[in-house]
Amino acid sequence: MSRKDASESLEIAGESLRIPPFPASRKVYVQGTRPDIRVPVREVRLTPTIGRDGVRQENPPIYLYDTTGPYTDPAVEVNVREGLPPIRLAWIQERGDVEIVADSERRKACLDRLPLSSRRPRLRARPGRRVTQMSYARRGIITPEMEFVALRENVLQEIAREYPRVRPPHRGEAFGASFPREITPEFVRQEVAHGRAIIPANINHLELEPMIIGRNFLVKINANIGTSLVASSIKEEIEKMLWAIRWGADTVMDLSTGKDIYETREWILRNSPVPIGTVPIYEALEKVGGKPEELTWEIFRDTLIEQAEQGVDYFTIHAGVRLHYIPLTMNRVTGIVSRGGSIIAKWCLAHHQENFLYTHFREICEIMAAYDVAFSLGDGLRPGSIADANDEAQMAELETLGELARIAWEMDCQVMIEGPGHIPMQLIRENMEKEIALCQEAPFYTLGPLVTDVAPGYDHLTSAIGAALIGWYGASMLCYVTPKEHLGLPNKQDVKDGVIAYRIAAHAADLARGHPGAQLRDDVLSKARFEFRWEDQFNLSLDPETARAYHDETLPAEGAKLAHFCSMCGPQFCSMRLTEELRDYAARRGLSLEEARAAGLREKAEEFRTSGAEIYLTP
Amino acid sequence: MSRKDASESLEIAGESLRIPPFPASRKVYVQGTRPDIRVPVREVRLTPTIGRDGVRQENPPIYLYDTTGPYTDPAVEVNVREGLPPIRLAWIQERGDVEIVADSERRKACLDRLPLSSRRPRLRARPGRRVTQMSYARRGIITPEMEFVALRENVLQEIAREYPRVRPPHRGEAFGASFPREITPEFVRQEVAHGRAIIPANINHLELEPMIIGRNFLVKINANIGTSLVASSIKEEIEKMLWAIRWGADTVMDLSTGKDIYETREWILRNSPVPIGTVPIYEALEKVGGKPEELTWEIFRDTLIEQAEQGVDYFTIHAGVRLHYIPLTMNRVTGIVSRGGSIIAKWCLAHHQENFLYTHFREICEIMAAYDVAFSLGDGLRPGSIADANDEAQMAELETLGELARIAWEMDCQVMIEGPGHIPMQLIRENMEKEIALCQEAPFYTLGPLVTDVAPGYDHLTSAIGAALIGWYGASMLCYVTPKEHLGLPNKQDVKDGVIAYRIAAHAADLARGHPGAQLRDDVLSKARFEFRWEDQFNLSLDPETARAYHDETLPAEGAKLAHFCSMCGPQFCSMRLTEELRDYAARRGLSLEEARAAGLREKAEEFRTSGAEIYLTP
Repeated sequence: MSRKDASESLEIAGESLRIPPFPASRKVYVQGTRPDIRVPVREVRLTPTIGRDGVRQENPPIYLYDTTGPYTDPAVEVNVREGLPPIRLAWIQERGDVEIVADSERRKACLDRLPLSSRRPRLRARPGRRVTQMSYARRGIITPEMEFVALRENVLQEIAREYPRVRPPHRGEAFGASFPREITPEFVRQEVAHGRAIIPANINHLELEPMIIGRNFLVKINANIGTSLVASSIKEEIEKMLWAIRWGADTVMDLSTGKDIYETREWILRNSPVPIGTVPIYEALEKVGGKPEELTWEIFRDTLIEQAEQGVDYFTIHAGVRLHYIPLTMNRVTGIVSRGGSIIAKWCLAHHQENFLYTHFREICEIMAAYDVAFSLGDGLRPGSIADANDEAQMAELETLGELARIAWEMDCQVMIEGPGHIPMQLIRENMEKEIALCQEAPFYTLGPLVTDVAPGYDHLTSAIGAALIGWYGASMLCYVTPKEHLGLPNKQDVKDGVIAYRIAAHAADLARGHPGAQLRDDVLSKARFEFRWEDQFNLSLDPETARAYHDETLPAEGAKLAHFCSMCGPQFCSMRLTEELRDYAARRGLSLEEARAAGLREKAEEFRTSGAEIYLTP
Repeated sequence: MSRKDASESLEIAGESLRIPPFPASRKVYVQGTRPDIRVPVREVRLTPTIGRDGVRQENPPIYLYDTTGPYTDPAVEVNVREGLPPIRLAWIQERGDVEIVADSERRKACLDRLPLSSRRPRLRARPGRRVTQMSYARRGIITPEMEFVALRENVLQEIAREYPRVRPPHRGEAFGASFPREITPEFVRQEVAHGRAIIPANINHLELEPMIIGRNFLVKINANIGTSLVASSIKEEIEKMLWAIRWGADTVMDLSTGKDIYETREWILRNSPVPIGTVPIYEALEKVGGKPEELTWEIFRDTLIEQAEQGVDYFTIHAGVRLHYIPLTMNRVTGIVSRGGSIIAKWCLAHHQENFLYTHFREICEIMAAYDVAFSLGDGLRPGSIADANDEAQMAELETLGELARIAWEMDCQVMIEGPGHIPMQLIRENMEKEIALCQEAPFYTLGPLVTDVAPGYDHLTSAIGAALIGWYGASMLCYVTPKEHLGLPNKQDVKDGVIAYRIAAHAADLARGHPGAQLRDDVLSKARFEFRWEDQFNLSLDPETARAYHDETLPAEGAKLAHFCSMCGPQFCSMRLTEELRDYAARRGLSLEEARAAGLREKAEEFRTSGAEIYLTP
């Protein structure tokens, strides 16, 4: 299969947006305590197991976490110009703590180039109110958002509990993750109140299906998209966003730096069911003609407010790049590799002043609290090479991020901490443990890390190794890296490759941490594999299209989907088939494991050789 | 880039075989103590660093481990019908412990369908002699093979020691690997004598460039190739072999199960500079029409001898699948997934007898010792799913493999132990530690392991995560998994994807274990990246073609290879460029790290803002 084939199946016909559903799948909803809390889940139907005796045993459907939003609901027609339904509007209005903001001049000036739903009034907190999920949580209020994420996280555990189990679950090191038997709204509230989890949910992102990021929940992944000066358009970016959520991105960061940055973001927000993050300093820099030293607090503040009013759910803020840390990067192999970090460093040196994001941090918190934008405290000094991993600069900044998290929490702001970058495997755990200690368990959101520098073109893979490890050790969200990292701007296929690599890493981490619902999908898929239910194996996989295409490359005939072998070994040498025969033989003879152990197999063996053996071995 | 493009560049023109050299690379040889010990190394030339002041600083070339054999030496013309030069012939003859074997009837019958070099006489040990590297090692003899591998392993460390260092190396957990400051022939001898490392080197594989597999050496990788009944031809298999060693496979297993199995193997061996492994039971089974219960010790023994005479360097032998372990697999999710394991299980049940490989193990050892075929003790009961990981069946077999290793060592046979399979991350370390304990440090050779079952189509990636981990924990060789695993027979592109994924895993493991030579490539590549030496970045990467193609996708112009930015961020936002400017500024002002720390940066900042800042910020 060509690397490009897969990217064709997304439909953007005219103004209508749709994500084709996965095979044998349909969207179902878990109903909450009120009619407008409807949590999407993907149901995958399975084929029955057919024994050799012809007895048919049904396999119940399984349910998967679903990030695709209304795009896979045939009952909803999504028009890109109208945006998604504002499902959170009532939740927010009912709280009675917001007011309407007049449209800014900038917004007014471009309203006719924005989606229709952009004409909805923009909201902010009424004076003196903090409208963050953390604020509600601390006041003992369970919001609809909390109930939504509780149901969303719990449904997998619940199904796993009830599904005919094949295996006892997890044993081994879970590194402090502790999953309750049931994820309740109250548990969610506690985790958010404590700062151990965040629900990024700007009050102006009404289209959002809430999700949670924290160590005691499923590991999440983020996909970056965004135009740059060199390439790509708004339409391409919307396509990439849909593509990312199709394959399982839990949040999307819009890192656009080119022209139309405001408009691009608006189109993405109005059409995104997942939280959108940004790095506001990119836009601020654009306003001053790309000259970092001309940045001012006022320009940055106005940019924050504009973006907050648009509905961005989390901001990367590089407030930890302190003036006196900059010299610590001078002897590095790769200096400062974070764009935001280097912009700030340049500003600091040009003015010889402390980072204005640091000195104005409390004012930033006030803005964040007025819209419930979550902090993603940026790691501007993250290592960009194995040589620089866990060095003095990185650790100094991490300590400051912990200090800033405490200030943000004082003001009821939600916080996660960004992490690197490039770290060899043996130093990843140290980084995770320091984050937990220095940042008091604020969720860790890491880029990879890449575990070696030597494979440009494959950094989705080098970084998926590090991501799986750090997810196991306790990271809450993994920011994907695409195969184009260090080389160029990702296209749609790269976005898909990055998302799938990170779904693998996140799932591997969930298994390793002992998430009670995680192993069900593995078990059900492996059972299907062992029973030669090829269709089920494809449909249960992270990428059914590719699994099917690879199989069909050598055995394209429809009949091969029922065959009890594949082209890897051919019919004669298929171990699964051989074991199936062994087991079938044992079953026909009423041979149980215990019996076999106790009595030995001698007489059974004789029967087998004289009666049935040759029947089952004919190719 | 299409997934298929890359596979076109291998040249098999007529009967001449060649692997195109990597860009900016040439093959050089390290000369040993005798003229015929010439250890291949790949030299990569680097471009100079050009400072902003125009000062040019040369970057010395770096040297990489080279698995491509004579195919990348322009001085050697390889003709597929003639095979590679028999570089080991003198070494073996000089030892005076071998005799010539008459060609078997089978061999005679097909000689005219084999490469010309197949007409060379076949060798075996003279009666009473053991011609294994372990036997020599224990007698205190340093063979040319040992010197060859010592030079091969040491050159990287030596160069790393002498190269202008950028960083202090490793700290963190190395899990018991201990690398000496210098890899000497005597160190190699000791490791082989102890059984902690093996040099797979059949006395009939004269074309071999020796390599070593052991915990205190670089982590190695294996690529599987092989025809099956359903697909592929001899020519395709030779192409896959060349393709695998081009991208860095250290050994190749020929798992052919189709027709022409003998001929396929002979063509591969005569043209392979790397050790070839096989699973002889596949061929034995073919001889009895695919009916496991008709296998006999005699048929198997004859197959071993035939293959040993051909020059196979290691055999997978499933001698650990004992009769009473079979019922332990009955309640598994995926039963027995090893082909060899299931064949043996079927034989055991049909006869109700103990596995004939187990009962005849000492006779097998005698054959292995007469040709120096190394054991790869097969894990016939490895888990085929997360649910079955580290279960009773797997651990029972592992214990038996340890018992068999001790017997093999008594008879001077070289041994490695095969490992799984499918294991979630948190159970990998336990598996590695049990292997070390139960098998007395015999090298562990693992298939992956895959850390989840849910991503068919991406199992090179799911398994590279597990492979990197188990390599760090102590595995010595990692058997690759391709994207087609569970779905079909890999094609050339799949072979490449698998090999690259495993080179990444092995290198990540070498870094994590603190191999003294490993980090140099990372450091040199990262320095090139930071200095915008794009050509060097491509040329130092594991896959220069793909790195270059990805870069050129958005910036194809030749000039972009000199640009101080790429399409990811565009010129304005390039953090590397910004840091470069910062550092350049500091250098021009004579600002050192210490000074900066001590004195603060205030006055420098003023100069910077008023003089140089704008110059460097123009896009």
